[in-house]
Amino acid sequence: MATSGDLPKKYKAAVYDKPGTISTKVEELDMPEPGPGEVLINLTHSGVCHSDMGIMMQSWKHLPFPTQAGQVGGHEGVGKIVKMGPATENSTVGVGDRVGIKWLAGICETCDACRAGIDASCVKSKISGYYTPGTFQQYALAPANYVTPIPENLDSAAAAPLLCAGVTVYSALRKSNVQSGDFVVLLGAGGGLGHLGVQFASRGMALRVIGVDHSSKKDIVLESGAEHFIPIDGTDDMAVAVKEVTNGLGAHAVVVLTSNNIAYASSVGLLRHGGTVACVGLPEGDPVPIGASAAELIGRSIKIVGVAVGTRKEAIETLDFAARGVVKTHYRVEKLDKLTEVFQEMGDQRMKGRVVIDLSA
Amino acid sequence: MATSGDLPKKYKAAVYDKPGTISTKVEELDMPEPGPGEVLINLTHSGVCHSDMGIMMQSWKHLPFPTQAGQVGGHEGVGKIVKMGPATENSTVGVGDRVGIKWLAGICETCDACRAGIDASCVKSKISGYYTPGTFQQYALAPANYVTPIPENLDSAAAAPLLCAGVTVYSALRKSNVQSGDFVVLLGAGGGLGHLGVQFASRGMALRVIGVDHSSKKDIVLESGAEHFIPIDGTDDMAVAVKEVTNGLGAHAVVVLTSNNIAYASSVGLLRHGGTVACVGLPEGDPVPIGASAAELIGRSIKIVGVAVGTRKEAIETLDFAARGVVKTHYRVEKLDKLTEVFQEMGDQRMKGRVVIDLSA
Amino acid sequence: MATSGDLPKKYKAAVYDKPGTISTKVEELDMPEPGPGEVLINLTHSGVCHSDMGIMMQSWKHLPFPTQAGQVGGHEGVGKIVKMGPATENSTVGVGDRVGIKWLAGICETCDACRAGIDASCVKSKISGYYTPGTFQQYALAPANYVTPIPENLDSAAAAPLLCAGVTVYSALRKSNVQSGDFVVLLGAGGGLGHLGVQFASRGMALRVIGVDHSSKKDIVLESGAEHFIPIDGTDDMAVAVKEVTNGLGAHAVVVLTSNNIAYASSVGLLRHGGTVACVGLPEGDPVPIGASAAELIGRSIKIVGVAVGTRKEAIETLDFAARGVVKTHYRVEKLDKLTEVFQEMGDQRMKGRVVIDLSA
Amino acid sequence: MATSGDLPKKYKAAVYDKPGTISTKVEELDMPEPGPGEVLINLTHSGVCHSDMGIMMQSWKHLPFPTQAGQVGGHEGVGKIVKMGPATENSTVGVGDRVGIKWLAGICETCDACRAGIDASCVKSKISGYYTPGTFQQYALAPANYVTPIPENLDSAAAAPLLCAGVTVYSALRKSNVQSGDFVVLLGAGGGLGHLGVQFASRGMALRVIGVDHSSKKDIVLESGAEHFIPIDGTDDMAVAVKEVTNGLGAHAVVVLTSNNIAYASSVGLLRHGGTVACVGLPEGDPVPIGASAAELIGRSIKIVGVAVGTRKEAIETLDFAARGVVKTHYRVEKLDKLTEVFQEMGDQRMKGRVVIDLSA
Repeated sequence: MATSGDLPKKYKAAVYDKPGTISTKVEELDMPEPGPGEVLINLTHSGVCHSDMGIMMQSWKHLPFPTQAGQVGGHEGVGKIVKMGPATENSTVGVGDRVGIKWLAGICETCDACRAGIDASCVKSKISGYYTPGTFQQYALAPANYVTPIPENLDSAAAAPLLCAGVTVYSALRKSNVQSGDFVVLLGAGGGLGHLGVQFASRGMALRVIGVDHSSKKDIVLESGAEHFIPIDGTDDMAVAVKEVTNGLGAHAVVVLTSNNIAYASSVGLLRHGGTVACVGLPEGDPVPIGASAAELIGRSIKIVGVAVGTRKEAIETLDFAARGVVKTHYRVEKLDKLTEVFQEMGDQRMKGRVVIDLSA
Repeated sequence: MATSGDLPKKYKAAVYDKPGTISTKVEELDMPEPGPGEVLINLTHSGVCHSDMGIMMQSWKHLPFPTQAGQVGGHEGVGKIVKMGPATENSTVGVGDRVGIKWLAGICETCDACRAGIDASCVKSKISGYYTPGTFQQYALAPANYVTPIPENLDSAAAAPLLCAGVTVYSALRKSNVQSGDFVVLLGAGGGLGHLGVQFASRGMALRVIGVDHSSKKDIVLESGAEHFIPIDGTDDMAVAVKEVTNGLGAHAVVVLTSNNIAYASSVGLLRHGGTVACVGLPEGDPVPIGASAAELIGRSIKIVGVAVGTRKEAIETLDFAARGVVKTHYRVEKLDKLTEVFQEMGDQRMKGRVVIDLSA
Repeated sequence: MATSGDLPKKYKAAVYDKPGTISTKVEELDMPEPGPGEVLINLTHSGVCHSDMGIMMQSWKHLPFPTQAGQVGGHEGVGKIVKMGPATENSTVGVGDRVGIKWLAGICETCDACRAGIDASCVKSKISGYYTPGTFQQYALAPANYVTPIPENLDSAAAAPLLCAGVTVYSALRKSNVQSGDFVVLLGAGGGLGHLGVQFASRGMALRVIGVDHSSKKDIVLESGAEHFIPIDGTDDMAVAVKEVTNGLGAHAVVVLTSNNIAYASSVGLLRHGGTVACVGLPEGDPVPIGASAAELIGRSIKIVGVAVGTRKEAIETLDFAARGVVKTHYRVEKLDKLTEVFQEMGDQRMKGRVVIDLSA
Repeated sequence: MATSGDLPKKYKAAVYDKPGTISTKVEELDMPEPGPGEVLINLTHSGVCHSDMGIMMQSWKHLPFPTQAGQVGGHEGVGKIVKMGPATENSTVGVGDRVGIKWLAGICETCDACRAGIDASCVKSKISGYYTPGTFQQYALAPANYVTPIPENLDSAAAAPLLCAGVTVYSALRKSNVQSGDFVVLLGAGGGLGHLGVQFASRGMALRVIGVDHSSKKDIVLESGAEHFIPIDGTDDMAVAVKEVTNGLGAHAVVVLTSNNIAYASSVGLLRHGGTVACVGLPEGDPVPIGASAAELIGRSIKIVGVAVGTRKEAIETLDFAARGVVKTHYRVEKLDKLTEVFQEMGDQRMKGRVVIDLSA
């Protein structure tokens, strides 16, 4: 069996020791053995995402089961393959290759959803950090055919957050029915998904970006490549403001990145005839109908599309753009034993940019 | 100027003499002269549509202006060209050709919406029977480049209702993101649009049709080619019923042909992951949000598309299917002086199938 | 490990004992054990295809390596899973399920070609019956995630030939840029691929089919659902003949199913502006440029697409159409020990329809 | 009738006085009157294109009729509307608007080709400068619904050459089946179409451009935004060279802009599986089959598409990119009486960049 030399018997991992509260504990776990079709990865970095918070706190109502004590969280991991399991001879990755683990850690590749290219609806999908050990640990197992190869000239720390936020917003832009030169509005353009989305849209896909967010986010939105910035605060009529910068017609697409029902309700009004709303941000609390009537959709031939997390193919494309310098993440690095503090910072809404955990020691 | 012989000085037309009430009056009008780019058509048949009723009764809240007394209604007209106006040398139609006039009587062909193929959003579109003289008359003018040629082996009376209901439902099916062999649910499968939609979907596009309507419509839905019929009355859980006949997965698309908000609210639940709701039926009264949450759309990668009336291209394709016998309309023929009675029958909900007015005498 | 009871130690297989000549020999082989991710299938039927002949005879110049003596041929196999290998827990198939093996017996699912949905270009694909043991045997191994489930109401013998010819011609039609109601010409409409293609196109996809073949094939082409038949013999100008039945415009697509360079050379001339030639039939001998000039392609906005064998997704769709009775194969059944005679019949051009080998005894 | 004040009775035009030779003559023509649906344009600039040369010299074998003495040539004209003909009330352009005339000066908008969006195949299309008076004149008539509006911040002289070369190469890139981030090879990247194509592809559509041309064109290709330049001279194996810069796979698309049969023959070899060759350059002399065999196309799922001149919609998009500074033309300005000399320069292969005629005096 291919392997990269002697591996330690034990390694460090951060587990949710008290699900429902902000608390993680660093423990020593036994080194696992890759099963058939699996690889063992020596993770060096893992991003920390709001979804991890939701799983740890059990605040996500749409998840079917309670989080278990001892769960290793995390779903934005990057590291090197150190061992290949049996039946991986045909794999396109091998020992020494850097690869990533993302939210969807594996799919069956054969069900109706997989065949339709909707990985997120796979009936047997595995979610990293929720009933499958996640990436807040130094070693993790993953399917050889579903890990994401990391391009050579992309830093592991920079790659980590792209595996979740980056892939999702990239996937949403691809599903927005736009072509280069079209206008796209990003609602929540200055946030974690937003600032990446603006970069992908403007530099990566040659779209004309109108960023919408709180006025405090103006600089990051414009620096990320937006052609226009419209502040939520101080704009009386968003539809009028968008029309003013789109030849009076409205945008070709609106990507809703906030989890704000008001953003959803306003989105259709920002579009020209034939335009598309791409829904990404998951509103919290009980589901509320998006505020669009059939009459509005029919009257102007509007489309609305729900966008789940991206596929492995989209992850590879996402990292390819980043490796070419088109997209840059804002992040700072912390050690694994700071993870609880990082979550506290997140819970207190004090966090700016993303945090990436250095798992190396 | 090309013409087909002597034309009478006067001809008969039915006008809305008292808009806001069910009332039409047959009057004699002066023969018009085709302007540049126009043709003069000797109409022989016109369908009577619920939208005519809405315009006559002024009950459509989304129309910007009140209907004027003296308006000639109607928007499903068929007849022969009897005169070509100036500057029609390049036209692909000529004197003697049978052509149709539909809801959209003309478009500018140059605005952003026209270039995007969304005729219904043209900034200068003309609507037959609303501020443009309609088809309840023996002669009408129309743009040479926007009339719909009627195929040789399609009866004029049969063609008339297809120009509105037929084109609309055909257009909706084309925009439903389905391919042959896919499952499509038609909500309102036994109605005016529905029974045509079932025929187009099953015989014309090789889709597998699940018709949903009141149990009294079972026969017409199955005769029209549906593979399954599910009655609204007596079905506890429509989503379960649809899954039972779609390998447990739900349909690939749902076309909402009713103007019923409940139908809209249930539609997303009938879909498999990645499925599409096509919105056609215009709910009356104040606009109500369609009952789908962002969470539902995101969770299963659902699409919703609003479908306005079809284009001239789609009208030609619609009639082509009919000419080949794929689609048949159920209609009866009445004379022009019975038009008020026809509208009363419609208002009393007593009408079965469609009525086509014979304008010939 | 899941299994369906005791399995014999030995079983029968037909091998190419003298590659380069028409010769097969029935031998007893040891029962194999499914490796990780694999299933063991008790095959009951295998179709016999011209490609098997090409491999046996070593007449296919584009294959990189010589066929080895002892190779088990065949690539249209159907049977029941009798044993699941390790690491197949997530598989959507299980012991007792009927499944099929096709030309592409397995792909890596991760290379650039696989991600692009072009299974045939996978850098690690396995070809059944060529350097991977094929389907002329009673037991075969296959990847759990790449076998094709056979629908319940489809006979195993009928399914076998569809796994190659059926999938290929179905895939070609899907790539021909046509929509229901369009005209498609099939060159070689009466052959093995052709008669299936006519059925898929007309009954399965609601296309208007113009079948072209030798006049002796007229009956089978029309019975398969073609709207028109044009004989090669006795038609002076094929382009004129096609225009006559397509409103003077030519077809929307031409699918070339023959391996005849003349058919390729004539194909573009049968199209209307914007039409598509789908290339399926592989001309023998040295590659010859297809007879279309850039001027022709540019002048009428023509497209030419090469169609390789279909994907697993297309195989599933193909069988779904067959299970619904839309498509029927013409075949006769022979025992395994008649395989050499079957190949001789094929080599002598005496074969009509397809032969399916009954592997059961 | 709307008009912009008094117009002169006579104006200057350059005609082909001796078709078949390089010769133009400036004459005085009578001011025409716009007919129904037409506008009268006071042209200020006209580009000079190789196609004008072809028409003047009668060297284009695929044109059906000989060029007439007295023909006003030119098909890249820009000017201001000075008069609207009758029946233009619905037009989206008016007196004072700057508009352009391109190769296709008008289409019928109703034939099968027009409905399919293939303007170039319109059965009644008019070609500017060939049997329709062109743009080498101070005043010209054009259909109100087919002129191309010029964006405010785009110079008239800069707009002129974009109306032909720009639109064509933009249209080809759109039809190449690529998405942002993909690799595209431009054969003839340093020429008139090429240097525009590199700009559109790289800056306008976010493609990764590999420019191929003679080594003398290296600078202009790289300055136009190409990521890589490969010289024809000194490159032994172009396919190998392209693979080296495309991760070993080949490009997603090749656009052939030269009229060189060798370029066509090599194009398929530069592609990865599933790639597309877009044919633009029209080889001179008798049509020669493009050097691709069916085996090559099938083996790697290759597509070939012929690209005719772009549509009015594509012209508008082309100019929109230019108005935003994404694309710049290299040109110099000459007076109308220098036109013959300009053609001589073109005939002697001495011309660098494009020439735009200033028609103002």
